[in-house]
Formats: sequence, structure tokens, C-alpha cells
Amino acid sequence: MPLTAAPGGTAVSKLRFQISISLDGFVAGPEQSTKNPLGIGGEDLHQWVVPLAAWRGPHGLEGGEVNESSAVIEETLAGVGATIMGRNMFGGHPGPWSGERPWKGWWGDTPPFHHPVFVLTHHPRPPLQLQGGTTFTFVTDGIVSALEQARRAAGGNDVSLAGGASAAQQYLRAGLVDEMELHLVPILLGAGERLFEGVRSLEGLRPVRTIAAARVTHLKFART
Amino acid sequence: MPLTAAPGGTAVSKLRFQISISLDGFVAGPEQSTKNPLGIGGEDLHQWVVPLAAWRGPHGLEGGEVNESSAVIEETLAGVGATIMGRNMFGGHPGPWSGERPWKGWWGDTPPFHHPVFVLTHHPRPPLQLQGGTTFTFVTDGIVSALEQARRAAGGNDVSLAGGASAAQQYLRAGLVDEMELHLVPILLGAGERLFEGVRSLEGLRPVRTIAAARVTHLKFART
Repeated sequence: MPLTAAPGGTAVSKLRFQISISLDGFVAGPEQSTKNPLGIGGEDLHQWVVPLAAWRGPHGLEGGEVNESSAVIEETLAGVGATIMGRNMFGGHPGPWSGERPWKGWWGDTPPFHHPVFVLTHHPRPPLQLQGGTTFTFVTDGIVSALEQARRAAGGNDVSLAGGASAAQQYLRAGLVDEMELHLVPILLGAGERLFEGVRSLEGLRPVRTIAAARVTHLKFART
Repeated sequence: MPLTAAPGGTAVSKLRFQISISLDGFVAGPEQSTKNPLGIGGEDLHQWVVPLAAWRGPHGLEGGEVNESSAVIEETLAGVGATIMGRNMFGGHPGPWSGERPWKGWWGDTPPFHHPVFVLTHHPRPPLQLQGGTTFTFVTDGIVSALEQARRAAGGNDVSLAGGASAAQQYLRAGLVDEMELHLVPILLGAGERLFEGVRSLEGLRPVRTIAAARVTHLKFART
């Protein structure tokens, strides 16, 4: 099964990555913990999206604003059939999974994904099926395997790379990201996790669209 | 003489700062040297501006392109009566100035400033008068003194903070920058000088205008 293109050259099942990033390049603040998963100041990266109707709806909340960012959110959520995330984003204590009450992610019993999610980890664990169509499959044999499994599970739809920074860096360095959307937030965090730490090339990703919204600038990159 | 505002509250003689910055936050690449003043890859930060007629004209060159960036360049050059820069940007070997053939800057006998320039340095040196109205005054008693001298010399016009990173960081940390324009270039440099190293707050600067141009995104911040 081809990874990025059908025989005729048409791109199929793209790997799409979107993330909110501060003006000084951080995607999470310092001192991340179970109580403060985004680190000090990290919540400020998401103040542009939480009030939007386009974000609230998929999270089971009513109402909300509509602005220039709404179409961007709708675009990033549409046509996604599977998600990949790193162990740090899935959360829980590092190391082997605890046997008695294993961590089930940050999102409660009905996570907002509603499709198969593949979690990169060094520690094997049986799949976890939650409500609303979300299953978590734990992949221990690397990023290429996770992408292959996610593409199969997506059934012709795209695969979303949810983060965090380490997972994103691995896929970016491998040149496997087909589309990247940076939500550039005009704040400084000063410390924390840098998105592009150890990434020295965009590997053919080029800017294709920029949208200046009220509280954020959306910078979309793709292979062109 | 008031530093930032006239008695009626009208802002006078703003300190304006503009700089090209990579997607990963660098304003110069690694291994800066006299032969390679912007460091490895650093020239790529300026590929968006060099072809523009709005840049070529003030540098004594004919022709050039006109695009969405042209008005931005014209705006940043207009109404500037004096410039401040750091010793590293002025160039020459670190330490005391050599007596015999002291360094005269990167810009030849007719620099493109055409107004008084104040260079932050720890090493005293008499003023240097070059052709076309550019004088370099070497300021050894700190950033506030340089700003006061530049404002007096600007005669009611604004003061431009030309860089480099260290000078910019000092003025940003002191909350003395009134306007900041970032020219965000969609490349990674991977290493070098970070604009926001050691800067933990925008000190009241807020986004006021974003322009998506062909090879760059212009992000303007001001006190609002």
C-alpha cells in the first residue's frame, strides 16, 4: 500500500498536522504536569479557539462565536478518519502502563475524536475502546507503523497528527507530514517545549495560505 | 524631555523596531563572522525584501518588484529621523576599536541611513561622519541614553531600532519599544540567534495588523 500517493499520482490519505504555537516558538509552557498538562502559560495558546462555535460543537458544547478562524477549524476537522498522537499528549505517568487503573487519556469517557486514535509509546498495552467511536490503539513499533495503521483505519480519509511536540518533530524530520497548519498566537511563553527543536528543514512543506484572524494568524503549509 | 508622550498624551517620536525572523524564531543563523555576518542560512531571511523596488531605491539601485510587501517597507522607512543599533550589527571585531583603520560599518562610504545612527558599545570612540548624511555616534552609557540622544537627533521623527538580537532584547525587556514589525519568513534555520531569547513578555505590545505577502507574513505590534 503506497504511503503518500496513488498510482496515478493523486495524493491519498494525507497526514495533516495542526498546532497552536507562541511567537517565541513554544507549543507548551514549562513545568508540564498532570495538573497542568500544557505547562505554565500553555492554556493561553488556546484562548483563540475555545470560544468558537466550530470548536464547541464537536466538544458537545452549545453556542459560541463565529469569526475568521471558524472556517480554519472546520477545515482541519473535516475529512479526518484517524488520529496519531504521542504518549506525552495522551498523558499519564511516563513508563509502563499501570495495571490496575490504567490512564484513559484526558478526554473522559466520550473523547471528541470519534474515530481510531493511535498512540506512540514504548510500552505495550491492549487497545482501549471508549464511547462515541473513539478507540485508542497503542503502537510500539514506531512512527511509520503508526502511520500505516492509521491510514488503513482512516478508510480513505486523512490522518490527523495531534501532537505533542516530540511526535510532531519525528514526523517532520522523516518528511512524512503532507500538510501543516500553525496557529501563531501573539504571546511569549519564554520557556517550555519548542515545536521545531531539532527540526532543521521543512522537508518540502511550503506556505500555501495565510489567514489573519482576531487573536491568531493561521499559516498553512503543504507539499506543492 | 518626555520619553514617550507629549503633555497632551499624543505619542511623539516612537521607537520602532522591525526585523526578519524565521519560523523557528531566529534572526541570524549560526557561525556569524565578518565574512558571513548573518550566519549560515541567514541571508535567506532577506530574500523577500531584496527584489523589491521599495528596498532597492533607498539602497541606490534601480528597478525592482512591487507586491504586498512594498507598502510595508515604505511605511517602515518613512518618518524615521534616527537609528539605534547594537555593536554586533555595526560589526567589526569585538572589544576596543582598533586605532589605525577602525571599522566603518558594513555599508561603505555612503550608508543607506542618511540620518544620525547611534551604536551601543562598551568601547568609547569619536563620532564617524560618512557621506549622504549618515553619522555614527558611539554610545557607552546604555540603552536609555542612546534612546534619548536618538530622539533628540530625530527632530520630532521616529527612531528606528535596527537590531541585532541583543540590542532588541534589551529594549524589549525594558518596555521601551513602541512598535514592532516582525517579517515572518517560512524557513527554518535550526540554530543561531533567537530574537526572543530571555524576553518573557511583550510588555504591552499587541498585534495591530497582519499582512500575508508572497514570501513573508508581516506582523505589526504596537501599544494600544
